[in-house]
Parts: sequence; C-alpha cells; structure tokens
Amino acid sequence: MSNENRYNAIIRIHCPDKEGIIASVTNFIKKYSGNVVALDQHVDISNNHFFMRVEWEMESFQLPFDEIEKQFQNEIADSFQMHWTLNSTKQHPKMALFVSRLSHCIYDLLARYQAKELEVEIPVIISNHLELKPIAEQFGIEFHHFHITKENKEDQEEKELILLKEKGVDFVVLARYMQIISPKFIESYPNNIINIHHSFLPAFAGAKPYHAAYERGVKIIGATSHYVTENLDAGPIIDQDIIRISHNDSIKSLVQKGKDIEKIVLSRAVKAHVNRKTLVYKNRTVIFN
Amino acid sequence: MSNENRYNAIIRIHCPDKEGIIASVTNFIKKYSGNVVALDQHVDISNNHFFMRVEWEMESFQLPFDEIEKQFQNEIADSFQMHWTLNSTKQHPKMALFVSRLSHCIYDLLARYQAKELEVEIPVIISNHLELKPIAEQFGIEFHHFHITKENKEDQEEKELILLKEKGVDFVVLARYMQIISPKFIESYPNNIINIHHSFLPAFAGAKPYHAAYERGVKIIGATSHYVTENLDAGPIIDQDIIRISHNDSIKSLVQKGKDIEKIVLSRAVKAHVNRKTLVYKNRTVIFN
Amino acid sequence: MSNENRYNAIIRIHCPDKEGIIASVTNFIKKYSGNVVALDQHVDISNNHFFMRVEWEMESFQLPFDEIEKQFQNEIADSFQMHWTLNSTKQHPKMALFVSRLSHCIYDLLARYQAKELEVEIPVIISNHLELKPIAEQFGIEFHHFHITKENKEDQEEKELILLKEKGVDFVVLARYMQIISPKFIESYPNNIINIHHSFLPAFAGAKPYHAAYERGVKIIGATSHYVTENLDAGPIIDQDIIRISHNDSIKSLVQKGKDIEKIVLSRAVKAHVNRKTLVYKNRTVIFN
Amino acid sequence: MSNENRYNAIIRIHCPDKEGIIASVTNFIKKYSGNVVALDQHVDISNNHFFMRVEWEMESFQLPFDEIEKQFQNEIADSFQMHWTLNSTKQHPKMALFVSRLSHCIYDLLARYQAKELEVEIPVIISNHLELKPIAEQFGIEFHHFHITKENKEDQEEKELILLKEKGVDFVVLARYMQIISPKFIESYPNNIINIHHSFLPAFAGAKPYHAAYERGVKIIGATSHYVTENLDAGPIIDQDIIRISHNDSIKSLVQKGKDIEKIVLSRAVKAHVNRKTLVYKNRTVIFN
Repeated sequence: MSNENRYNAIIRIHCPDKEGIIASVTNFIKKYSGNVVALDQHVDISNNHFFMRVEWEMESFQLPFDEIEKQFQNEIADSFQMHWTLNSTKQHPKMALFVSRLSHCIYDLLARYQAKELEVEIPVIISNHLELKPIAEQFGIEFHHFHITKENKEDQEEKELILLKEKGVDFVVLARYMQIISPKFIESYPNNIINIHHSFLPAFAGAKPYHAAYERGVKIIGATSHYVTENLDAGPIIDQDIIRISHNDSIKSLVQKGKDIEKIVLSRAVKAHVNRKTLVYKNRTVIFN
Repeated sequence: MSNENRYNAIIRIHCPDKEGIIASVTNFIKKYSGNVVALDQHVDISNNHFFMRVEWEMESFQLPFDEIEKQFQNEIADSFQMHWTLNSTKQHPKMALFVSRLSHCIYDLLARYQAKELEVEIPVIISNHLELKPIAEQFGIEFHHFHITKENKEDQEEKELILLKEKGVDFVVLARYMQIISPKFIESYPNNIINIHHSFLPAFAGAKPYHAAYERGVKIIGATSHYVTENLDAGPIIDQDIIRISHNDSIKSLVQKGKDIEKIVLSRAVKAHVNRKTLVYKNRTVIFN
Repeated sequence: MSNENRYNAIIRIHCPDKEGIIASVTNFIKKYSGNVVALDQHVDISNNHFFMRVEWEMESFQLPFDEIEKQFQNEIADSFQMHWTLNSTKQHPKMALFVSRLSHCIYDLLARYQAKELEVEIPVIISNHLELKPIAEQFGIEFHHFHITKENKEDQEEKELILLKEKGVDFVVLARYMQIISPKFIESYPNNIINIHHSFLPAFAGAKPYHAAYERGVKIIGATSHYVTENLDAGPIIDQDIIRISHNDSIKSLVQKGKDIEKIVLSRAVKAHVNRKTLVYKNRTVIFN
Repeated sequence: MSNENRYNAIIRIHCPDKEGIIASVTNFIKKYSGNVVALDQHVDISNNHFFMRVEWEMESFQLPFDEIEKQFQNEIADSFQMHWTLNSTKQHPKMALFVSRLSHCIYDLLARYQAKELEVEIPVIISNHLELKPIAEQFGIEFHHFHITKENKEDQEEKELILLKEKGVDFVVLARYMQIISPKFIESYPNNIINIHHSFLPAFAGAKPYHAAYERGVKIIGATSHYVTENLDAGPIIDQDIIRISHNDSIKSLVQKGKDIEKIVLSRAVKAHVNRKTLVYKNRTVIFN
C-alpha cells in the first residue's frame, strides 16, 4: 500500500444476541461511506451470544480513524452492550518470541517475518538458554537471556515484563519455550500469549507428549496452538493439525514428524492473531474468515 | 420443528459490489422483526462481485413468506441489480438419483436419507442398468430402467425428463452414473445436476481416472463433486477430498480406497446443495458456511 | 479365484528379535516352492521384538495346507520361540455385528459386505434395541434382540456367547453398540472384538465425547477403532482419523460430521482385521501393509 | 554413533520377480552375521518386478564394507539379474541447492540442516538471482550466482556442472528454482535432481499453477516433489500433499498457503532421498518404509 490513507479498519465485537446488530453496525459504516471488504459473524446459540468481525476501507471513510472509537461507542456499542476492539491494518503488532533450545518454530517464524509474510515487528527474542542466540543474530534481532531457576523465577519474570513493556510488546509467542509461565505474567498479557503444544490437546497434555503417544500406540499425532491461561495446556485453542503415523515410528521419528506440524500450526495461529481474526469467549475461540 | 411457523427463510444473493448491500439486506429483515441466524458474505475482488447468504427465523417475521419475494425485489433487489433466490427450510427439495452398476454412493445417500440426515425427498431412482434395482426396493423407492444406446439416447433422455417433471424433481444426482448427459438435458436443470468424478479434477478428467493415476504414480488420489455443464468434467466444483496412497496400491486397491472418498464427497456436496449453501458464478462456486 | 487351489497362506509371527528370522521363514517357503506375494516385517527396538506377516501362493506349494502348521512349528517356530498364526485366504471369517440405535456404521459395513468388498460372512446381528431390525431384514441377515438391564446383563451376555458359538462367530464388531462389554465376554474373544469410539482417543474417552469436544473448543474431531480390552476405551488402537471443525459447528453438526469418519475408520479397521493385517503386542498394534 | 564401526549398510534392489529372492538376500546377510534392522519389499504384479530395501548393522558383520559389492554381485545379484546399489549410513550425500527468489523452501531445508535433521552436506547454493545470497551467508554456505539468459544457458549450465563436480555433489535440489533444466544437465544427474512443483501434479503442470487453480475453482491445492526428467513436470513423483482452500482465498492467499505445503513436501522428499528410501522404475517411485 503506497498511500498513507490506503488501510483498513477492523472491529471485533461480541455481545448478547439480539435482532438488528448486523444492520446497525453496517449502517454505521455505510453512513460514513465506508466500504466493507470482509464481514464474518457467528451466533453461539447455546449461550445466545453474538460475534462479529468487520473490516472496511478507510480511504473514503468520512470519520478520522481516531474518532471512530468514540462515535461507535455512542452510536452503536452502548445500546447492544458490546465488548469490542478497533484496530487498523497500519499498526503492526509487536511480538516477543520466547524460546528454549529447539529451533524449528523460531526458524519458521523468522523466515516468514523476513519474507514479509507476517505483518509484525519483532523487537526481542527471550530465552532461558543460550543455544538459539546465533539464530537471533542471524536475523539481526535482539536476544535476551534469562536463566530461570525455581528460586529466581518470580524475579526473572518481573524483569522480562519490564523489558517487554520497554519494547512495547503487544503479544508473546512461546515457540517451544520449555517453562511454565506464572499467573502474574499471564495476567499482564491476557489472551495475548500464544503457545504451541506438541500434541493433539486435550490428549497428552503435560510433559513428554510424544512419549505418551508412543506408549498409547496412537495412529495420528497432532499439535495445538492455544492462548495461555492459568490452567496448563487448557487455554482457548486457536488451531490444531495432525499427521498420520504408524507402528514403524519410533519416539525419535514422532518427534521429527511432529516438528513439521508444530511449526505450521504455530505460524497459522500467529497469523490469525496478527490479522485480528481471533476472539476469545468462555475459554473457546471464534476464528473469523 | 413441531410448530408450523418454526422455519427459516434463506436468501442467496449475488450482484455487483457496492457500499451498503449488507446494511440494506439486514435492515430489510430487521424492519419486519426477523432474527438473523446465519449470514455469510463474500466479495470476489477480481470481479468486483458480491455474494451473500442470509437465513432468518420466520416465526416472528411480520411479512408472510409468500409476500417476501415481491417486497424484497422492490425494496432491495432492484436498486442493487441483484440475482437472488428465496427458499424456505420447510420445502424439502426433490432429488432424483441416477445410477449405473456401482452401489457405494447410492447406499451412502440412501442410508443418510433413511436416517433423516438429508432433508430431501427422493421420488425416483433412474438407471441404465438393472443391477441396483434391489437396492431401490430395499429402501422402498421407485426404480425406472432406461436402457441407453447411441441410437436411443435422445429419446430416452426425453422420457427421463418427462418422468422427472411428473415427479416434481428439483435436482439430479449422478451417483456414479456412467453416461454422459446431453446438453439438452443439462439445460433443463442448470446448476442442478451434481456429479461425482472419481479423481482430483482437473487431474485425470475423462474415463478410467484410477488407471491414469496408477500410471502416473501419484501419491494421493481424490474425488470431485461438481455441477454438470456442457464441458465434460469441467463444471463448477462443489467439494473435493483426497486420500494418501503408495506404490503398494494396485489399481484395484485405488478403486476401493477411492470409493470411500467418492461417497463422502458426493454426500457433502448434496448436503450443501440441499441446505442452499451453494452459489455458482462464472463456473466457480461460493460455498457458504 | 475360480480354482480351488488358487489361494494364499498367511502367517503372522512375533518373537524376540534375533539374526536370521526372515531368512529362515523365507527359506521354509522357498523349500516347498511357495511364491511370496507380500512380506512385511517390523522390529520394535525398545522391546527387541520382531514382527512379520508373510503371504504366499498355495497353488504350487509342495506342502498341503493342513500340514503347514506342524512343519512350520518344528522346522522354524520352535527355535525362535515364535508366537504365530496361520490363515488361508479361502477361510472367510465370521463376523457378528452388535448395534444399538445408530445406523451409519451398520449401513456402511453391510453395503460393503453386499458389494463383496469385505471378505467375511455375517451370520448374525445382535442389538439391545429393536430400531435397526428393519436394516438387518433389508440385507437378509438374522437379527437377535437382547434387552439388557443392570440385572440381566450377565445372563444376557451368556446367551449371546452361546449364540455366537452356535453361529461359529470368529470376531465381533461393535458398530456404535452403546453397552459396556463385561470382562468375561471379552475374554471369550481376546483381540477379536473391534469397537469404534467417536473421538480421537485418548482425548475424550468415555461417554458423550462430542459434547466434551465442543466444550473444550477443539478445532479437529476424530474417531478411533480399537480392540476391546477390560480397560474402557484403552485397548490397542487399529485406526484413527480426523475431520476439521470450527466454532461454527454445533454439537449436532459435530455428531453428523463425526459419523462420516466413524464409519470409514471402523470399516478400515474391520478390513485390516479380516485381511489378517493386524497383530497385537503389549496393548499396541502392528498394522502390516 | 560414537563408534566408527557402528553404522549400517543399505542395499536397494530391483529385478524380475522370482521365488526365493528374499531368502537369498537375507541368507547372504545372515551368513556374515549381519543383523537386519529394516527390510521392505514390494512386488509390482503388473510388471512382475521385485523391489527391496534392506538395512543391516555393520558392527558384527564379517565382511568389510568395501568387499560387500563384489561378494553380493557374485553370490546373489548375478543369478537374479539384479539392479542394485549399496550405501553406508556413514556417507552423508552432498546436496547442491538451486534457488531463485523465493525463500521459504531454502529456509526450511537449511534450518533442518543446521538442526542436524538432514544427514547431508551442502557444499554450495546456486542461483540465477542475487536475492537469496544473504540467506546463504546467514548459514555460512558458499553461494554462486549464475545469471541465465536464453543465449548463455548452455554455457552457464556447463559451468554449473563443473562446479558441482568440483564440490563432489551427489544430488541437486531445485528449491523453487524458476528455470527449466536442459536435458544435458539432467543426464548428468539421472534420478538425482529433485524438484518441487507448486501444484498437485498432473493438475496444473507448467507455469502459474496457483493462478490456474484459482481460475478452475478447486477446493484443494497441492504440492508435488518429483525427480526431474526431460519431460517437464512429468518425472517420477516422490511425495505430494494438499491443503484445503475455499472461495475466500485469493490468488495471493493460495500462494501463501501453498508455500507451507511446498516446503514440507520438498523436505520430506529430500529426506527420503537422503535416507536411500527411494527407487525409480518406469517413471514411478517405490518409497520404502
């Protein structure tokens, strides 16, 4: 987009279901001459709850972007008791990567970043180990090492949070980061910490899922990307995928095959998040088109 | 739905893209106190064309179903140059099954029909062979045999069309019917004849696709369900699926594995059609959620 | 196969791994002029255990089929401490179907049976309900109703076992049979009772897996076919498959989508069992090519 | 493997089918006290042709590796008219990467290489463009730029071949290299040039397959990795995979989704080749377990 004004606005909404929500929202956009380029809505019938994502072009929109919030709240959101967020496609969110020793997910994300496939900024990579520092350097990204022990965990996480704030980080991606994040840290980034778990959750939650899958003799293994909540491996699922295996696979080959789906699933989840296509409600996600 | 009034109306629309279409349509529904239960829209940016499917409850709707057509045309459709169709979930479309000798697709469809998974009526099964007559009888459905030769094809198809008209047939499913349908027949049911082709189109169009797949040494085979047009195997694709194969597979095992995806893909396509979730434009389909 | 002598012998073996097993077994077949048409072997390295399935043509084989057992035991099996079974492709195993109220799996299996895709005999269908009796009649198969209550379960299962023995049943398929089988029954058919569980085990074991999947907000659902053991839903897995879902899916649509994979996975498992391609060891299966 | 002697020998064989091949080969290994760790065989019944891959441990083998060739030829291969190759797992094949401007495949391969997931050496990366030179540098691999025009193609390919010979390159991977390789070049590396085609071949062979897929309105796109032969996009297929798309996908999103399967499929094909699990016969591949 060469032109400063050629960007889109995105609103994500959820509220109790009621007649006329879509009409009201689209009328609002029409009133200021906005052209809708994407609209996806969903009704959770069992909870009688409404969800919508609408994206429109700002070029010809008669309301400046920074006045939308106030107008939309007054004209529309109040009367429907909406929870809603507004974003612009001009703002590229800032993503921090947390890694440990395994390189497949970080490589996949950084390669996409460098190829401009992911519309993010990556101000910092954080690790509890030093092994992947050279990869951060390869890609010219700041790397910070926080050695974590049972004793210093609270302190270190506090320092990490300070660093993230300094860097203006919007969301965190745990790219096979082998540490459990404390509730306090999670609360600082609600629905903004994305993890990749190397199994088809809820099967094989916890540690060593490939060993457990091998023991159980499953014929398919999976990977799950989810938002991190206080309940380990139980947060809202963003994406999942699987790969077929057989008795021929050793634990070692499960690990290798698994890496391929882990990195793909994590990247898809990050992309959905970055493109503001996710919405969390009652520990589940709506993933808009 | 126990209650006579508890049904939904469905409108499918396509028209040149323009500001305000969604607002206008949803305003129309809101005005008569309709509650939208599903709305899916799509913009084909390269053709600047708009598509929408909207479904709402009729129970509280202030306009009788048979007046919707006129009102919608006047109030909305005219100004946007819409092509559109209105359906009610009360009307179960009438489906004719055309079969030859293979039973897997017909069994799958009839089993779903009998289990009330498919909201259709099946007044008639037509075949150019007698082998599957016992299956029609098993399920208590009228079976008509039309022996087809090069010489009598035109005559026989005419008789088939008369029979279909008599039975009030809305759409035709070719469940591995091994005859090419003539253009005249196709014109009588535009975008209402569904075929299952036993390959991943456009690969291996034409006869004997499994033999061709074996010869080429592919590692995946597929099935494609599409609307029938004058161009053989080139009509708008409704659904496709695949299964992984290997050098171990003989042509015979390809045929057997293929049957499983053929019947699943055909059933999914029929279900999408029956639920009015398909829309054809420029030889491609939009498949609504 | 028109000719009485044109059939194959199949031996499935497992034993501690050792040098020379394959050479010994294939020498045995060569010695009597047998032509191997399929050989698949597997070594479980962590248990140092060897598995093999070998199939050869009997037409030119110099040893009559009913002498193979004795000779193979003496010449080969003893020295390697083999567990092994011998089958002939002429013997079609006898399968009993246990069903409750859902028809999709039974239809799929019976349609394959009638199309001669499954090389079995089906002497009897057993159910704790009467709903599916008409389907058994449709296909001309004996149907027996055993009403089961907490009180009469032991008695009824005993009567079922007597019936199965009478009919010469080799293995049992639970085609969405909604009863837990008692240990005594299971012991009568070790590794010969095949169940289809409507989830991707070990996720969502137990009752109502689709409800649980919906609650958890997974993006993929699955089906698992396994041999029944005393531990509910924990027996050796034969096959699994999955289908992608989204937030748009209600529990009802999960159930419908799930049916498609349930029936396909169950049929694949039955076919593997019938073709003697399965071998159970330490609660896992080896599935030969 | 810490020990110099702890490696495996691999023999791949194909020959006319006949009684006793497996027995003869496994006897040969047994005779010299070799322990088979993997054996996979296949019979192409329509061509009456036999294929086998056998891998055994060299540690206790009584014949030195460099005498195997002569002994096996005399004792076994001659009498069965075998085509066969012998490899050692100690020899890591040398792979040259050919790239143009797209980075996803090269990143994926280099990340695996650096993580020691691929047992190859990569002495050189060759490109007709300069864009990806920084990536080669990132990973510390020699990069050579060969600008190609219609006029200089023959010359440049000759220089490339000289360079490949100098570097001892065993096989070539075209990681989205956007040039057609001339027959002369192909002849220098028969069945040793691996290409990734960005469609589900044979559908959409040739240029711009995603555009063609979009035009045709398919619901699934694919990627195909194959050995390069003189017939463009028609060489023996090593691996294929697919991803589901919808009418919502633009050509741009097809390209992005396609990249994910391209890189995974190419990497799987390279791994199969490196592990000596592929065998080409009559323009098709046997891919051993």
